[in-house]
Amino acid sequence: MYLPQDFEQTDMSVVLELINAAPLATLVAYTSGGLRADHIPLMMVKDRLIGHVALANDLHEILDANHDVLVVFSGDNAYISPNWYPSKPDTHEVVPTWNYEVVHVHGRITFHHDRKSKLAVVGQLMKVFETRTNGNAAWRMSDMPANFMEQKLNGIVAFEIQPTRILGKSKLSQNKTDADRLGAAEALEPSFIAARMKNPLQN
Amino acid sequence: MYLPQDFEQTDMSVVLELINAAPLATLVAYTSGGLRADHIPLMMVKDRLIGHVALANDLHEILDANHDVLVVFSGDNAYISPNWYPSKPDTHEVVPTWNYEVVHVHGRITFHHDRKSKLAVVGQLMKVFETRTNGNAAWRMSDMPANFMEQKLNGIVAFEIQPTRILGKSKLSQNKTDADRLGAAEALEPSFIAARMKNPLQN
Repeated sequence: MYLPQDFEQTDMSVVLELINAAPLATLVAYTSGGLRADHIPLMMVKDRLIGHVALANDLHEILDANHDVLVVFSGDNAYISPNWYPSKPDTHEVVPTWNYEVVHVHGRITFHHDRKSKLAVVGQLMKVFETRTNGNAAWRMSDMPANFMEQKLNGIVAFEIQPTRILGKSKLSQNKTDADRLGAAEALEPSFIAARMKNPLQN
Repeated sequence: MYLPQDFEQTDMSVVLELINAAPLATLVAYTSGGLRADHIPLMMVKDRLIGHVALANDLHEILDANHDVLVVFSGDNAYISPNWYPSKPDTHEVVPTWNYEVVHVHGRITFHHDRKSKLAVVGQLMKVFETRTNGNAAWRMSDMPANFMEQKLNGIVAFEIQPTRILGKSKLSQNKTDADRLGAAEALEPSFIAARMKNPLQN
């Protein structure tokens, strides 16, 4: 990815928070059939990304063990109008741009077909997403009839991705003056990206 | 992409509207250095996607003429809790899922370094995004000093992508009963994906 220094997100806690806040990843692989992308919610557990696909998804068949993949997590994004820069009338030397935050995790994927791995992956994903969504009223896997749960586990394949490189890009007008950056943020309020533009948090 | 028939978006007008509504694309290529993705606003003009990159972005140097690329456009997405299905108490045979809409455009990319092509691309992109953002107060390229505009045009490379295959996926609970689909949509209101779940629009 094109990554000018101004926009490199060097704070790994921000990178991990972006993954946590936007878990629906685009998992990209190059295969004998060309480029391919699947959209899968993932979670970082210790130093691995974990997730699962349907058994009917041939991804687990066409990728070799340790196949290289690129996982893209996308935060909020917005068009930035030159009209929003307070400095615009000074010189009119301004152009539109697009702000966004993304994380790229390059890594190697390994699929797991055993029941224990599958149960561990779905259990961890569901606990996080359910608690976030429903708090104390979180749905639990034990709510399902046991035979139904086994049937659903039989219909998936778990995987983990071992990262080899992690890149964060926070393109949030850090290359502008504070006044112009905050002026553009104000025009986008209220939004997640406006909050991020006000405080891009880089080391 | 794994694309069960229930979720295939067969209405090309919906596919084009998804591109129009979420123009910040993930442009993926397989290069001698491995997988690579760049995030670039694109627009469909006639039957081509058009966009531009910074001259400093080496993408235009490392991709051959007509290099295969995959362009991903991502609409809204949301975690779907089993708690939201009115049918849940009947059998408890429900599991969490994630809903989303995406468009994949497979195609071949061609870069253009001539001033006319670059001016045409930025002119078309800016007109659409500015009018959408600012209406009658839209910023215009003619607001820039002429020498500044030439300097900016010298700093970019235009490109077009000729699609070879377009896939739309609208994963909006169409595999559930109407009552369960609408129950989950209600839990997500107000949101873009709730509106889409209420009316998935497929041919």
